[in-house]
Amino acid sequence: MQIKEFQNMMRRLYFHRDSERGTDGTLDWLVEEVEELREALKGDDIKAIENEFADVFAWLASLANIVNIDLEKAALQKYDNKCPKCGLSPCDCPF
Amino acid sequence: MQIKEFQNMMRRLYFHRDSERGTDGTLDWLVEEVEELREALKGDDIKAIENEFADVFAWLASLANIVNIDLEKAALQKYDNKCPKCGLSPCDCPF
Repeated sequence: MQIKEFQNMMRRLYFHRDSERGTDGTLDWLVEEVEELREALKGDDIKAIENEFADVFAWLASLANIVNIDLEKAALQKYDNKCPKCGLSPCDCPF
Repeated sequence: MQIKEFQNMMRRLYFHRDSERGTDGTLDWLVEEVEELREALKGDDIKAIENEFADVFAWLASLANIVNIDLEKAALQKYDNKCPKCGLSPCDCPF
């Protein structure tokens, strides 16, 4: 699936509620989901780990919808098959 | 770009260094990037906001590479055009 399609799917599913919750509230949920991912990664339940990766990605896409950012465009502007710091692919920079 | 292609691009660019840093170190960077996104969202510099969205997505993909999770597969397993809680699209559940 295209990154853009996933973001659009999140918009169809959740935009109304996401926009009511607002930017700060959605950011707080994103942070919470990263912490849930950290907890899942302490165990070895692959399904739980996959679910938490899915949730972090979903909340990131939701947040992008609220603030009207195209996640795919943003990602490719910065990471177009090369490191944005050293310009090389694969990256061999010291950063 | 497909979600899977973006994850593979991150692998080509950064896998060697990501795997040396390890899961905890990469998670810490992901949290740091979410906080940088929060700071960027307090301003109105669209380019800076796009860059921070790109970074959070990039670090999430890097973390998935380290722990051998297919981010696209994980996302579609949980969010296949319907809310995983209520099963509806668009979501109308109270959660």
